[in-house]
This record gives sequence, C-alpha cells and structure tokens, in this order.
Amino acid sequence: MRESGLLNHIYARSAGLAARFPQVVAGPGDDCAVIASPGGERLLLKVDQLIEGRHFVGPVSARADAPTSINLVARKALARPISDIAASGGTPWAALATAALPSNFDQHTADELFSAMARWAEHWGCPLVGGDIAATEPDSAGRPAPVALSVTIVGVPHRSRGPVARSGARLGDAIYVTGQIGGSFDSGRHLTFEPRLAEARWLCATLGPDLHAMMDLSDGLGLDAARLARASRVNVELDAASIPLHAGVADWLKACGDGEDYELLLAVEPGRVLPPTCPWTGTPLTRIGVVQPQREGSPACVVRTPSGVVDLSEAGWEHREP
Amino acid sequence: MRESGLLNHIYARSAGLAARFPQVVAGPGDDCAVIASPGGERLLLKVDQLIEGRHFVGPVSARADAPTSINLVARKALARPISDIAASGGTPWAALATAALPSNFDQHTADELFSAMARWAEHWGCPLVGGDIAATEPDSAGRPAPVALSVTIVGVPHRSRGPVARSGARLGDAIYVTGQIGGSFDSGRHLTFEPRLAEARWLCATLGPDLHAMMDLSDGLGLDAARLARASRVNVELDAASIPLHAGVADWLKACGDGEDYELLLAVEPGRVLPPTCPWTGTPLTRIGVVQPQREGSPACVVRTPSGVVDLSEAGWEHREP
Repeated sequence: MRESGLLNHIYARSAGLAARFPQVVAGPGDDCAVIASPGGERLLLKVDQLIEGRHFVGPVSARADAPTSINLVARKALARPISDIAASGGTPWAALATAALPSNFDQHTADELFSAMARWAEHWGCPLVGGDIAATEPDSAGRPAPVALSVTIVGVPHRSRGPVARSGARLGDAIYVTGQIGGSFDSGRHLTFEPRLAEARWLCATLGPDLHAMMDLSDGLGLDAARLARASRVNVELDAASIPLHAGVADWLKACGDGEDYELLLAVEPGRVLPPTCPWTGTPLTRIGVVQPQREGSPACVVRTPSGVVDLSEAGWEHREP
Repeated sequence: MRESGLLNHIYARSAGLAARFPQVVAGPGDDCAVIASPGGERLLLKVDQLIEGRHFVGPVSARADAPTSINLVARKALARPISDIAASGGTPWAALATAALPSNFDQHTADELFSAMARWAEHWGCPLVGGDIAATEPDSAGRPAPVALSVTIVGVPHRSRGPVARSGARLGDAIYVTGQIGGSFDSGRHLTFEPRLAEARWLCATLGPDLHAMMDLSDGLGLDAARLARASRVNVELDAASIPLHAGVADWLKACGDGEDYELLLAVEPGRVLPPTCPWTGTPLTRIGVVQPQREGSPACVVRTPSGVVDLSEAGWEHREP
C-alpha cells in the first residue's frame, strides 16, 4: 500500500464534491478542508493520525525520560493538525481525539494520555470536546498492537483574509519560509515544534490578499514545495544558499528531505517584501525562491546551486516508504 | 484498561470546559458535543472508531461474501457516528475519516474502502471532505495490526428544537424507543442498521421542547437507559412486556444487553402521546417506561416484570470487556 497513490485517488474522486454539496467550499487535497455552515460561516476541518513506531518511538510511557513521554506524544498528536490550521491562516476552535490502545494498556497511563491531549488542546485554544477510546487485542505472540491516535481540529479562517489554500501561487511570486528546516527527527524537534499560528495570523493581517498561497512543511521542503507548485499549476525554483537551516544541520539537500519541519511555506505577491522576522514572534521569515511558469516535463520544484539546477520535487518522506 | 473508567475521568475533567471556553456549549459526555461558531451558530461534533476484531469480524475483504465486506465496514464506520448526530436531533453536514492500515494492505482494497466511506458519507448527506491514511507495521510474527478507522461527523442541530441532550429527562416523562431491539450481532443488523435521522427530525419538529432528552442505543438498552437517567438525575423504570423485540429474539433480558441496536431512546413530556409509527418512515414508536425520582442506592434503570422489578442498569456491552 502506498499512501501517496491512495491519496491521489481520493483527491481525484472528490473533484466534483463542491459542485454537488453547497456546504463544501474546498474538499480533500489542501492542508484543511473548508466548509460553510448553514448560516454561511466558513470553517476549517482537519484530521490527522499519530501511530506508535511510525510518528513516534514507542512505547508510550509515563516516564518523562522514556523514548517518548505521554506528554510529548499528546503534544505532537495535537500540534500536527493544528499546524495545518495555521497553514490555512486559521485559529483552532475545538478538538476531538480518538485512541486505539492495547487492552492491557495501563489505566493510569491511558488517563494521563487523554489529560495531556486535553491540556495541549486548551493550550492552543481548541478545547477537547469529544473523543473515543477503543481497546485493541494483542497479537498471536502476545505483543500489543501499536498505539494509534487521531485528532480532529475545527478551525476558524482569518476574518479578513479568509482561508488560505496552497493552490493560489502566481507567476513571479516570492516564496518564503518561516523559521529553519532540517534535522527534525534527530534533534527531537518533531516532538516540540510550535505550530506557526501567530506567524500565520500576522501574515494574513499584513499581506491580506497578497498572501497568495500557504502550506505547512510536513514531508520535506522539496516534496511539499512541489505540491504547492502542482496545486497552483506553476513551478517553484528555490535558491540553495537562501534555505535557512537549523544549527547543526550541514547538508542542505538532506535537510530538504528530512520532513516534519512544520514551518510555513508561502507564496507572496512580488511587490511585497517581508521583514527578516515576524514582528509578533521574532520567527525568521526568509525569501528562498520564486514562482516560475509550469513547463511540461520539468520538475515542479528545483533548487539552484553554484553547480547547476537540482530536481528537488521528490526530496521528502513519502519516497522512503515501502 | 477499562474504557468506562477512563471515559468517566474524561467527563469529570471536562466539567468546567464550557465556563472557560465560550465556544463550548456542551462538552464530552453526551452523544455529540455542541460548539458555537464565532458568529453564534451551533454545531454538533462526534468522532467514533471502528476496529477490526472488535466492531467487525476481520479481515476486511473486497469479496462481497466475506465475513465483512469493504462496503459494510465502510457503512458501519459512517453509520455509528451519524447515529449520534441523529440522537442529538441533528443533520449530518460534513465528514472526515482516518484509516490505520497494515503496510501490506492491498492497494485496491484500501482505495475501495475510502471510496465506500465517501459513498456512504454522501448517502447520508455529509460529504467526506478530508482524511488521513497511515500504514502500520506487521507484528513480530508477521501478522498485520488490526485495521482501525475513525470517522468524525460535523452536524447541524434541528433549526427550531436545537441540540437534544440525554440530560433533559424530567419526572413523569414517558420513555419511548424507536424500532425494535436485540440480536444485532447475530443477525448482522449491526452492519446494516439505518441511523434514525428522519425519525429524529420528525420528533424534533413534532414535539419541539416537549422532546426532553434523547440518545442512541449503542451498548444495550439497560446500560444506555441508565446513562440517560444518571445524566438527567432521575431513575427510569421500564416495562418488560412493552419492550419491542426483533423477530427471532425471544429473551427480552438478553436483548436489553445485546447492544448495537442504534435505535433512539427518548424522554417525552407526559401529556404528549406519540403515534404507533413515525409518519415519515413507518418506524415503530413504542412507549416502554416512565421517569421516576432518583433514589439513593437504587439502580438508575429497572425493568418491571410479572415476577418483580429487575436491575437493568448494568445490562450492556461494557461489562463484557476485560
């Protein structure tokens, strides 16, 4: 099973959804879906999973010094979909969570896990209003099934800018990235990153309609920039020397494929120049590239280096999967 | 791990949520959560899981004659949370789904599973606008982890009646149930039941504020009636002879604990008498009991039989768990 192929089928099948259901403003394929309420208010919807052994090293433990403590598992389960709400320029409003836990899972640890998810949900302003818990049976060898969490976030789009999609990039746009990228897993940042909610709100307020497109970097700068490019029917050219790397990250090409950066990638009207940092948070804002015309047969995302142009559109997580 | 104890902790911890977050109208503990949008519109939220080996017999198969076909797994994954929207008197509006599937899961079957979920979501009027797929690794013996699905439904409350909670039953209320109960697993009805959306809408329209409380029967009439009673701070007394049983179900006491009936249980103002069937659908509506004062030390739900009164408050699914 390949997740990417499956997702592409889902997106293709959903193409006519908005035409058939007036409540669908934007269906599957972007960071968040956008729906309209009966009264015409727009809402963002996002669901994401966190699987033991895949998104964090197991076992989940009450010990703070264990590979992954309950607190950090809960934090990441919430932070991932909240990062998608940020990518759409929105504000988290309410959360739901499910857990499939081994039937012999310690009661106290299970309780702590939900308490921690509730705390992080409230921390980011979206109270945990519902959930479900199900017990899974151990396998034939008595080993428990992996812990599997899902978190749904309902979000509210930016009041004046409205929902920001990844599909709005235009020819000549400047490509910016927040923060730095690379080494998220090795450094443990994939467990402690701060979703860029405040930065997204500042960008929406400052740029308004000049903020053409935005997404969060979950699978790697190369792969994700190519997705933004394809969704916008353009190509993206990045400048290798401009890509901001975390301290201790030396290899920019590897960094572009590391994934789980959870920074924002955005396309901005060419005439608008952003300050070097977000005035609200101090987070760096770096111009790393430009939007170019889509050319048949050419990669959706390339990076310019002193020795030439490199295809970056397959640098990311997806291609390491079985 | 006991799901019931864990859920009680979650409800207790969430008690002050509405006071701290103005968007929370009703937090965890009812069939659906109720939130208010920034513009003041009310929305219903529900998430539920469907786990292979727990909620359906595995493996999921593309074969229509297999223990559980893709189509029926997808149907049940949607129908369960949609039944909770019905229990709140609401209309399904949008759906999100996740799947944790074994990494060696057949691509075509995975694709069919999501297509089937999308079809059923549209069938019940709530288009599938987003989702997530994650691959789980096989265990040490090479056996795949169980298929785990989660479905989130956003619903819209009834326009005039508003959201119906399970906590509104009053002294003297008549207790009604839709349809018949019992034998859901043995008969396969747990895979093919029709969520009582139309019946709930009719009840809201007809009874308005005289529809005091409602919930769906997921874990067994006894256990669920006791939950409605405790939430309303009353006791419920049922009449054994009145309980409508499915054809082929002989033992009413066993039927009260079978679970997965997905019928509606409701408490109605005493002066209002319902017709024997719902005029919109023909579904039977049966008066099966009455609301009595809460008495310390007495069971939340009892059933009156020719030979005396039986405690029914523990007749249900929860108590069969490890």
